Amino acid sequence: MTSPVTFVNCFDVPFGEDQEFLRLWRQVNAYAQSKPGYLSHALHRALGRDTRNPYINVAQWASAEQFRAATDDRFRAMIAAPEWQRFPALPALYEVVDERGAGN
Amino acid sequence: MTSPVTFVNCFDVPFGEDQEFLRLWRQVNAYAQSKPGYLSHALHRALGRDTRNPYINVAQWASAEQFRAATDDRFRAMIAAPEWQRFPALPALYEVVDERGAGN
Repeated sequence: MTSPVTFVNCFDVPFGEDQEFLRLWRQVNAYAQSKPGYLSHALHRALGRDTRNPYINVAQWASAEQFRAATDDRFRAMIAAPEWQRFPALPALYEVVDERGAGN
Repeated sequence: MTSPVTFVNCFDVPFGEDQEFLRLWRQVNAYAQSKPGYLSHALHRALGRDTRNPYINVAQWASAEQFRAATDDRFRAMIAAPEWQRFPALPALYEVVDERGAGN
């Protein structure tokens, strides 16, 4: 059972704190990228700030097992750092259930 | 100014109401697909239900202008239907600010 999965994480980032958020996010993301099973990511920033989700990361992993193995003790320690408490996150693993592309 | 944009919509769907949600979502999505500028979409469903975002749609549009033109009176009437009130949504337009793929 090693189907690819999508990890989506929605972040609430207070106005004016983008630089600090990006610094922390890049640190955690670099660690994730070093792990087996990481395939790709795209960090999205809202065009307007009238949303509770100004940043959303969408990442592909080769399997849920590899994603779970990547979120190890060191990973958990990073996201438990007090600086992260300013940036509430809603992370979860997903599968695609309805898809259509320009070429489909 | 016609850069592609990403429309992300996070949905809260009460447990057991997936079928009704999908019926409504497909109706609105079919309308969006018929509009100029729609490029692609992928509707994601969470692998577990322990999240406030059990469904997330990620769609590509050719430009913010075309997306805004697509969300016209008929579109707004569809999403204002009373059935939609069971499924709170957090929609917004995004640009990608940090990206890495398996081939990068």
